[in-house]
Amino acid sequence: MTRQIEHALAWRYATKQFDPNRKIPPEIWAALQHALIMAPSSFGLQPYRFVVVDDPAVRAKLLPHAYRQRQVVDASHFVVFAARTRLTEHHVDHFIDRIVEVRGGARESLSTYRQMMIDSLVVPTAQSRVPHWAARQCYIALGFLLLSAALLGVDACPMEGFDPAGFDEVLHLPAQGFSAVVCCALGYRLDSDKYAHLPKVRFPSEELIQHV
Amino acid sequence: MTRQIEHALAWRYATKQFDPNRKIPPEIWAALQHALIMAPSSFGLQPYRFVVVDDPAVRAKLLPHAYRQRQVVDASHFVVFAARTRLTEHHVDHFIDRIVEVRGGARESLSTYRQMMIDSLVVPTAQSRVPHWAARQCYIALGFLLLSAALLGVDACPMEGFDPAGFDEVLHLPAQGFSAVVCCALGYRLDSDKYAHLPKVRFPSEELIQHV
Repeated sequence: MTRQIEHALAWRYATKQFDPNRKIPPEIWAALQHALIMAPSSFGLQPYRFVVVDDPAVRAKLLPHAYRQRQVVDASHFVVFAARTRLTEHHVDHFIDRIVEVRGGARESLSTYRQMMIDSLVVPTAQSRVPHWAARQCYIALGFLLLSAALLGVDACPMEGFDPAGFDEVLHLPAQGFSAVVCCALGYRLDSDKYAHLPKVRFPSEELIQHV
Repeated sequence: MTRQIEHALAWRYATKQFDPNRKIPPEIWAALQHALIMAPSSFGLQPYRFVVVDDPAVRAKLLPHAYRQRQVVDASHFVVFAARTRLTEHHVDHFIDRIVEVRGGARESLSTYRQMMIDSLVVPTAQSRVPHWAARQCYIALGFLLLSAALLGVDACPMEGFDPAGFDEVLHLPAQGFSAVVCCALGYRLDSDKYAHLPKVRFPSEELIQHV
């Protein structure tokens, strides 16, 4: 498995040109969605929604808000990571309900845990932290998606170069309490993508890893 | 491979009790460090440093700043993800130098790319975005590390529950232009860890995935 991971890490790159005619098979897409769902998050709160934009008309509407990068419309799949902009007691209780539903046990046994989440994220002094905190959690899921895709031979392009306000409007996210933080196009590279053939640029490991 | 990923996603959990006597073998650790290094980042700028805390004395100093969670001292390996708090023209040029070193070609051919990074992250109006932007990049690497660990049968616990200022001081990060944003303990679970046996709690996929 070390070799398979190493190969996936070397094989993947931020794909610029996707083959508009190649679609990710349903069973592979199911595995990728599963990686998104199973990604861990702070407190387990999953303060996000993964918006998979299937409709070509909606993709076309997103395009001008993403500097017209063709990945938005050419890729087989396009995921917008939308983070919660606010967390309420209701959300925390919804999560607690879900824990009880999945694990059984008494709701009361989770009261300390519940209070910890309220104190960290719901009280007025904590609310300004929520958008940043929730955005970070999206990036764990993005990491899970990107590495899973590479292991499954699916190309991907993580994208921060878009106008979140434009995406939010097209996808009606603010009314649902979310805001777009990052996206990912997935599919299959075209041979003509020159970036596929360039060596990867990373700083030497001595600059990135520090042992103390 | 879909099955191996699915298994890894189900097997992993935020490990609370690590076996203090079991160490990750060097070749496995090398694969995990490689996943950190190869994780993608915005513009490819890698605005982070991965601090691997080997010294038990330093781990002991971090402990009180992490609510005395035993993972800090018991795990085989402990990584602090430190994000750059500021980005200068010098950093951008250092990165451009590295691109030329790895890929060859003329420095001048990268001038548009260079200016794009300067405009997004270095100009005075952009500087306040840098800590949040750099922190998010750390979380992609965290995702790569967590999924790689699970695939390699290594337990892990991502940790946000610590005092960044305390960690920064112990690890002398501010003087180097970094700040701790998240950590990860890695090693092997103890059988006595009751969390290992609990079913995973995730919202139903209809709540997490939205197709439009």
